[in-house]
Amino acid sequence: MEGQTKKLVKLGKDVETRIFDGDNPFIELPVRGKRNVIWDQKAGLLGLGDSKSKRHFINVAHAKKFMQTLLVGAFAKQLMDEKIHASLREAYYSLKHTIKESKENTFDEQKESDDVFVDLEVALGILRDQLHINADRRGVAAGNVVIKDRGDIIDWSKLGSGGWAIPGNVEDLSIESVDADFVLVAEKNATFDRLHEDKFWKKHNCVLVGTQGQAARGIRRLIHRISHEYKLPVYVFTDSDPYGWYIYSVIKMGSMNLAHASKELGTPKAQFLGLTISDIYEYELENAAIRARDVDIRRAKELLKYPWFKHKAWEAEINLMLKKKIKAEQEALAQRHLKFVSETYLPEKIEAGNFLP
Amino acid sequence: MEGQTKKLVKLGKDVETRIFDGDNPFIELPVRGKRNVIWDQKAGLLGLGDSKSKRHFINVAHAKKFMQTLLVGAFAKQLMDEKIHASLREAYYSLKHTIKESKENTFDEQKESDDVFVDLEVALGILRDQLHINADRRGVAAGNVVIKDRGDIIDWSKLGSGGWAIPGNVEDLSIESVDADFVLVAEKNATFDRLHEDKFWKKHNCVLVGTQGQAARGIRRLIHRISHEYKLPVYVFTDSDPYGWYIYSVIKMGSMNLAHASKELGTPKAQFLGLTISDIYEYELENAAIRARDVDIRRAKELLKYPWFKHKAWEAEINLMLKKKIKAEQEALAQRHLKFVSETYLPEKIEAGNFLP
Repeated sequence: MEGQTKKLVKLGKDVETRIFDGDNPFIELPVRGKRNVIWDQKAGLLGLGDSKSKRHFINVAHAKKFMQTLLVGAFAKQLMDEKIHASLREAYYSLKHTIKESKENTFDEQKESDDVFVDLEVALGILRDQLHINADRRGVAAGNVVIKDRGDIIDWSKLGSGGWAIPGNVEDLSIESVDADFVLVAEKNATFDRLHEDKFWKKHNCVLVGTQGQAARGIRRLIHRISHEYKLPVYVFTDSDPYGWYIYSVIKMGSMNLAHASKELGTPKAQFLGLTISDIYEYELENAAIRARDVDIRRAKELLKYPWFKHKAWEAEINLMLKKKIKAEQEALAQRHLKFVSETYLPEKIEAGNFLP
Repeated sequence: MEGQTKKLVKLGKDVETRIFDGDNPFIELPVRGKRNVIWDQKAGLLGLGDSKSKRHFINVAHAKKFMQTLLVGAFAKQLMDEKIHASLREAYYSLKHTIKESKENTFDEQKESDDVFVDLEVALGILRDQLHINADRRGVAAGNVVIKDRGDIIDWSKLGSGGWAIPGNVEDLSIESVDADFVLVAEKNATFDRLHEDKFWKKHNCVLVGTQGQAARGIRRLIHRISHEYKLPVYVFTDSDPYGWYIYSVIKMGSMNLAHASKELGTPKAQFLGLTISDIYEYELENAAIRARDVDIRRAKELLKYPWFKHKAWEAEINLMLKKKIKAEQEALAQRHLKFVSETYLPEKIEAGNFLP
């Protein structure tokens, strides 16, 4: 039995033992939610604090959630036994039933089962991906990387203009070889396509990952794995706006919602390559800049409050944005000329090590 | 010079000739917009009618748009000469400049350049993909298909759990071989993943395409190409709601916005596999059905008005939805059991030829 399955079975056995001993069975869970999210400055990661709670069976307020937790656990066990995977939504529909001789549903909304999967992930200290639950997929990869996945040997350098579609769950693949000096993560599809067509990853010996907006769980885990298993630096390239900077921060230190999984999903050594607000002036992109909207201003002020943005360099950039009230997209670099991003901007920034922390 | 470049050059030459002849130069354009969209019942495609308009240089109302059209044409020519591609947004930033000795910008918003690219596509009767303008990418493919793209030979049957990421522009790739009996198009990522993990394309000898929602231009063109070049039927599998049915109709007969390109993007022989509202009852999914919202009801009533939904079978389904006020997701089939979709539902429907037109 694999480690993950063992942990899950132990949770069930503990409940069973307590029942046979005539005790009130319970499951112990670290408290999630913002109150128990901590910023681990040393690790450079978000994490959970020490607060724990117990979910009891014989407790009117807990009983339904207790039942749901066991149903979800049994479902995950079945997936692992059958060696198949399910999305959160498939899991919800699979688990949703009307309890016999009642009008009570096991689950009424997907949010209920989603939450319990996270509970289980936290309680067991394993990723829900390892419980065979897939996150939604997004993202694309190219470069001198060879992976093995479902028995196929896949060479990311030989996939034409398309690239390899990153799945929602990257636990079962093995990264066989990586011939690269760094990982470059790009927010926009158009940027991925530009760099891919310009053979950036070939010329600059890197792995190219496109996130298509906020990085999905599979992408974050894949960046983490490549970077950790092959000791590679990671440079993140987003729009010059608070949303882009937030995308970067989630890749680097994790998110509040999944703070318990930051160690597996985050990449603390990731660095921010650009776009910065300073870049707009440095690279003469003023005519391609966009006026910041109220929501951008509000988000920028929020970023200033996060302890993980409390660096002089970041504060200077965010304050510059607030002062100038502008932002810019990655594609703004096309105003200089189409290949400016691949031939000038990125090589200059990387060569100079001109990153934000 | 390739055919596409020739057409573009001719447009420029015609303008030049008229200038040297002392005439007022103009560009002739088929009228776009809903008034000139027609439903070609015989072809089973949306298309443009015969209305044409002329865009003159010496006309206060046309002059700016005339200039924009020539700028966009010149930009496309440059892309084709340099054998590189650009996204619509990169094109916008590349083209946006302040005209010398004035405060006038060539383009103020991306919508202006986007519109002109479509104008050019319509005026020349070629796809803007062939003008080296890439649509945003989305979608994933798997199956016994071998393509050649940028010098790489790519076998879609050997790409692990990820699959091939479909690019925004599929004009330059060649489909080398297809060993399949049909193409199955799935709306949801989770459905693609389910069928891919269950080896559906291997067991049922098909090509599997995931659209991740509304099918992007690259996906529609790719489905068109596989189906036309290899004479394969196409079955579309979406949620049971008006949005899913609309996704199907766009794959099949094109969209109002891109009516001029339906011949290249549409696949008139595509058939609708499901989910239908009847399926909810047929396959006992009542407990997984969802109450239709007002917006669903409104959309369903709109579909009834479209001439391309005027089939008895479709009207029966849409009216059933309006009567029962329900809808269902593809993942609802997981309520029977996880592999029900791949082992029972799809094989039964395909075997029986139980499709909507």
